[in-house]
Amino acid sequence: MDNRILKLKNQFPQDTTNFLILNNTNIVYFTEFNGATALLVPQYGENTLYVSETNFEQAKHEVKNTIIKKISRGENLFQKICQDVKISVKTKLSIDSISIENWKNLTKITGDENSLVAAGNIVMGLRAVKTTDEIELIRKACRIADAGINTAYEIVKPGVNEQEIIAEIEYTMRKQGSSGTAFDTIVTSGTNSAFPHGTYRKRTIKEGDLVIIDLGATVGFYRSDITRTIVAGKINSKQQEVYKTVKTAQDLATKTIMAGAKAAEVDAAARTFINKTRFRDCFVHNLGHGVGLDIHEAPTLSPDSKDVLNTGNVITVEPGIYIVGFGGIRIEDTILVTKDGTEKLTNATISPSI
Amino acid sequence: MDNRILKLKNQFPQDTTNFLILNNTNIVYFTEFNGATALLVPQYGENTLYVSETNFEQAKHEVKNTIIKKISRGENLFQKICQDVKISVKTKLSIDSISIENWKNLTKITGDENSLVAAGNIVMGLRAVKTTDEIELIRKACRIADAGINTAYEIVKPGVNEQEIIAEIEYTMRKQGSSGTAFDTIVTSGTNSAFPHGTYRKRTIKEGDLVIIDLGATVGFYRSDITRTIVAGKINSKQQEVYKTVKTAQDLATKTIMAGAKAAEVDAAARTFINKTRFRDCFVHNLGHGVGLDIHEAPTLSPDSKDVLNTGNVITVEPGIYIVGFGGIRIEDTILVTKDGTEKLTNATISPSI
Repeated sequence: MDNRILKLKNQFPQDTTNFLILNNTNIVYFTEFNGATALLVPQYGENTLYVSETNFEQAKHEVKNTIIKKISRGENLFQKICQDVKISVKTKLSIDSISIENWKNLTKITGDENSLVAAGNIVMGLRAVKTTDEIELIRKACRIADAGINTAYEIVKPGVNEQEIIAEIEYTMRKQGSSGTAFDTIVTSGTNSAFPHGTYRKRTIKEGDLVIIDLGATVGFYRSDITRTIVAGKINSKQQEVYKTVKTAQDLATKTIMAGAKAAEVDAAARTFINKTRFRDCFVHNLGHGVGLDIHEAPTLSPDSKDVLNTGNVITVEPGIYIVGFGGIRIEDTILVTKDGTEKLTNATISPSI
Repeated sequence: MDNRILKLKNQFPQDTTNFLILNNTNIVYFTEFNGATALLVPQYGENTLYVSETNFEQAKHEVKNTIIKKISRGENLFQKICQDVKISVKTKLSIDSISIENWKNLTKITGDENSLVAAGNIVMGLRAVKTTDEIELIRKACRIADAGINTAYEIVKPGVNEQEIIAEIEYTMRKQGSSGTAFDTIVTSGTNSAFPHGTYRKRTIKEGDLVIIDLGATVGFYRSDITRTIVAGKINSKQQEVYKTVKTAQDLATKTIMAGAKAAEVDAAARTFINKTRFRDCFVHNLGHGVGLDIHEAPTLSPDSKDVLNTGNVITVEPGIYIVGFGGIRIEDTILVTKDGTEKLTNATISPSI
């Protein structure tokens, strides 16, 4: 963990002597503790974790090499921090994430807005490049997600309800060791599958339906993300054509991925191909996103992304084609970016194979 | 739904002519749609929902009586909104929730920070008082939570693993129609139960363990929240004493609840009682919180709360006693505040009955 703090210290904005972490996921990133209110990282010296009375004993028990301070009832966190460290224009406080209300509260206490720096992008940049330990947790979460998809392949058929499918998928993942879903499991079927994030409706699957299954598991706070589209029954020719187009788009994009590749160009590899078919403009979302402690994090794979891929990025590659009145097909995998290419972390069968 | 918008319009801050809703849960509150980027509510005229290309077709399909505008790739939401409505010091834009970065972006576009109002507390105030429809959804979510607890009573025993308990509980709730857990299910056992929000460790339950089960279901976006503490095996005399104290504290607090009661006094009814026993200062968290679209919302039941309870508030009452090295006992129910008192929405057995 110390390495992560060191990397942050190497990226302190100019004149910053302390970095305040308020975003809970960022606090977990630096401490592996999920119950603190704030983490203060000074340029020199020990970190301080601020914890409410509720979680104070647990923090003392679980967090090492860190000063643990209790925020007592009625105490103001920002006042406490300003008592602990000097904040001025020459010794600034950088902050990862803060609401306008709290920014104004802090400004009142420090007396000068210019002593504060909104610097969330720095932590997000660090989090985008995963360490070996982080990759191992994501790998486990991906294996569990594969098991969830395998359950879906077993039970999706005409007559089964979307709710039953979700119940069985999530039960499998919990039994395999998931600490909860990585996000709200998506099961959309029939024409509803044309809505990429469609709300599920406890609908009963019919013969010939497209059924999109988008799920993820969590292991040690780290997440996975996979989508398969299952045809309930016999696939028809239009479904086959869409399926083949999406699968080819995914393959084309994946081949362009390696450290140094531009995220926008990876997106273009899939999008340009789809737009040359008769399904032009039916790919209505980004190609992918980083996955880690959050289900959506840096880098972003989209036409307007400025991101460049790095060794250690974990990203999704998830082209889809959506046609109102017909339905949608999406295929998604979680992928590790390596020096020379990729390693697929999700490996459930893509079926029907075309 | 129109009623909620009307209530908001009646509470526009002075000189506000438009209210911008950016918080996703607040957007769901006003639209029942979970996939928009922003909702603009003008003092007069129709609302506008801003939706990315990904969810645009779904929004058109599902949201009524609202202008649906697509945010195209590369378009700036704030610039788009500022083109749609006039924002000035005399025709202010109120905003429910915004980061410092976006506040600064908006200020750049409007040219004057004083044309913006941070007014999140207004929407949170509206959400705290539930309508009959909302209460019905919470009631359903509470029934499913009761079923989850019943499953826990069936399977918690020495030799069973925390992970297995969670798997079975969540499976039951999904089968009963839950749209996902209301929050990460908490199962802590043995001395770990002394940490109110303890991270579960896939620990195997031992004879005589205290096992805290804190869970909730979701129905139509609305949540429920219940905790029971189960003794795995025969209860010992200290456990019995703690159990009885917590149960009495919950009863005492519940009796003080009605419209018009001060939240701090309800908290005090439980806390004062516990602090008069030998478990003084072992109740290390608030007595309760509002439940609705979020698992924690207004009102807050704590010693320093300024809230006054209203008919239609849905709150938790959850005293607990936590002793490091011994464990913890918490009993929690979700409760509707009525004119004259309360209606318990969660009704799972409290066992052992003492």
